[in-house]
Amino acid sequence: MTEYSQAQPAQPPFQRVRIVGSGLIGTSIGLALAALGVKVDMRDIDTRAQLLARDLVKSQDLVDPQLTILAIPGSALAEALKSEFLLNSGSKFIDIGSVKTKPLLDVSRSLTPASNFLATHPMAGREVGGAESARADLFESRTWVYIPKALSGEPVDPELLAYGLWMIKALGGIAVAMGADEHDRAVALISHLPQAVASLLASQLVAGERSALELSGAGLRDTTRIASSDPTLWDEILSTNADQIVPLLINLQNDLGTLITSLKNGASIASFIEKGNQGRALIPGKHGGAAREYTYLPVVIEDKPGQLAALVGECAAVNVNIEDLTIEHSPGQFTGLITLALSKSDAQLLSDHLIGSGWNVHAPR
Amino acid sequence: MTEYSQAQPAQPPFQRVRIVGSGLIGTSIGLALAALGVKVDMRDIDTRAQLLARDLVKSQDLVDPQLTILAIPGSALAEALKSEFLLNSGSKFIDIGSVKTKPLLDVSRSLTPASNFLATHPMAGREVGGAESARADLFESRTWVYIPKALSGEPVDPELLAYGLWMIKALGGIAVAMGADEHDRAVALISHLPQAVASLLASQLVAGERSALELSGAGLRDTTRIASSDPTLWDEILSTNADQIVPLLINLQNDLGTLITSLKNGASIASFIEKGNQGRALIPGKHGGAAREYTYLPVVIEDKPGQLAALVGECAAVNVNIEDLTIEHSPGQFTGLITLALSKSDAQLLSDHLIGSGWNVHAPR
Repeated sequence: MTEYSQAQPAQPPFQRVRIVGSGLIGTSIGLALAALGVKVDMRDIDTRAQLLARDLVKSQDLVDPQLTILAIPGSALAEALKSEFLLNSGSKFIDIGSVKTKPLLDVSRSLTPASNFLATHPMAGREVGGAESARADLFESRTWVYIPKALSGEPVDPELLAYGLWMIKALGGIAVAMGADEHDRAVALISHLPQAVASLLASQLVAGERSALELSGAGLRDTTRIASSDPTLWDEILSTNADQIVPLLINLQNDLGTLITSLKNGASIASFIEKGNQGRALIPGKHGGAAREYTYLPVVIEDKPGQLAALVGECAAVNVNIEDLTIEHSPGQFTGLITLALSKSDAQLLSDHLIGSGWNVHAPR
Repeated sequence: MTEYSQAQPAQPPFQRVRIVGSGLIGTSIGLALAALGVKVDMRDIDTRAQLLARDLVKSQDLVDPQLTILAIPGSALAEALKSEFLLNSGSKFIDIGSVKTKPLLDVSRSLTPASNFLATHPMAGREVGGAESARADLFESRTWVYIPKALSGEPVDPELLAYGLWMIKALGGIAVAMGADEHDRAVALISHLPQAVASLLASQLVAGERSALELSGAGLRDTTRIASSDPTLWDEILSTNADQIVPLLINLQNDLGTLITSLKNGASIASFIEKGNQGRALIPGKHGGAAREYTYLPVVIEDKPGQLAALVGECAAVNVNIEDLTIEHSPGQFTGLITLALSKSDAQLLSDHLIGSGWNVHAPR
């Protein structure tokens, strides 16, 4: 299993955690915390899920958890919060749901003091669910949103906030503070809308001819991958966040109408595809900022050992920073192609250097 | 490196091929045919593309090609067919366009005898185009449709058909005979509709808040991957096949309207997500599947100069062949993640070596 090693505080700030909900997220958190030496008590109303999760996590019974993580559907949160608070009123509480105004509303009406509840949302998931799909590194390099204030404006208890931020970091996540409204508007665009669209698209295949589906390629598979998602889970998420999603769906409906009209009239739709290019380019790449404008430098190499190392060595020699690198070589091909993603100035510098050293460099794009 | 293929005829049925169009498809065909010992003459009206393709393919000038492959946009086909026929009237012709009724119509009006033209469509592509993205194994395990009859009903010349079928098989493709109408209806569903939907979805991001886009995850990236596709190419494809696409878009529009109404009324949308599950499950797993079986080895590095070179050096030291490589830096982190694509045995070998040398290696997947 993956090691969690890097640079974490030697001691977790809490030792005993109860995780209510043994699905993908709950069990993944359990696996990761247990690997860090925290005692974890996995729970689920579904006996099979609970047994599997307890086995995977090496779960133990805990009577006085310092932290209770509610990894359950939003519709079950109010009830669970009530019963868990009655059971362990000394515990602090964290949720992990996909919509954030709702749990804060629930807690504002519950017995649990609002400052003892931290609403969070790890932006991680898989199109397969359940404890069996859990993995300790599910949150590695993923954004994990937390809401630092209750609905009343009261700040979250500092000790609880420290628990939450330690956990996010220790599990490899990137903590991002947001308002609940801001979060729900954001996920409507970047998560709930893609889910609705992927489901819509995949639905169109049901009436398709078998001979057509046999031609399916990577494009169809990628665009519909998340259409395999759990109907109960996503019914709840989309319904809970309907106020934010409906306006986005109406915009999409308008654009779809325009596209249909253009195609019917034989008008160019190039600008429609271009707008898609623009939107796609706004999705952040590696650095979290909008995808950077790199210059791509193609270098044709002999397909033999040591060429990549030699090329990377040339970059180091002139102090050029490789932002990304793709290798295209395939069976039966005499030559390979390495494309280096570089800053514009580095691309110019490196291109001159490589040409001077006899490399087969092509024009950058 | 893996050898290209096992069970091919020892001798190609043709020795001299002219490929008009040095984009992704044309250059990939050129690379693969050259590897099989065929003399290839790469051409393009774009000088930069032609130079790169000729270099990659080790292209040569040929005066009497037996086969001319037109790997160009459909809108340029009629003109190219005319000039190529005048240049080499003894050649046979193959196209590779995404819509098939149109080239057959073009040829029925051209100088080229209809039986000397084979309309085909390799179901392979990438969201990146150009000679620099070409690879000899692009067609491996991909369906490659061919249309065995001209519009008049006249069968394709048997020698040309043999050329085409040999090439499809030799390049790793799966030859599927279809009628032109049947093909165009099928690709409308499994290729053109997903393209339109991905572009529509990505377009919605243009008006999105920057803070929302920062939360983007794998779902959004996958559903919009093909939205990066070339506007000129896709304007042409969608417009040429509008008769087949528009009815599908109207069905989608109706379903979208129903979804909006349900969300507005607070009705369950579980059955909508379920229908998406059903459609997704209809996509065949293997056909066109192409997924190369690599093992991915994640290595966490310090994000400082020289780390990539050092890592590549380690690979060279134990004679491990890097098939592909991605570099990820996460926002606000001082570490980077390099994922190496390797053969399974190389992954094991390298993992052991790197761990022994103190690298931070994670479990392969």
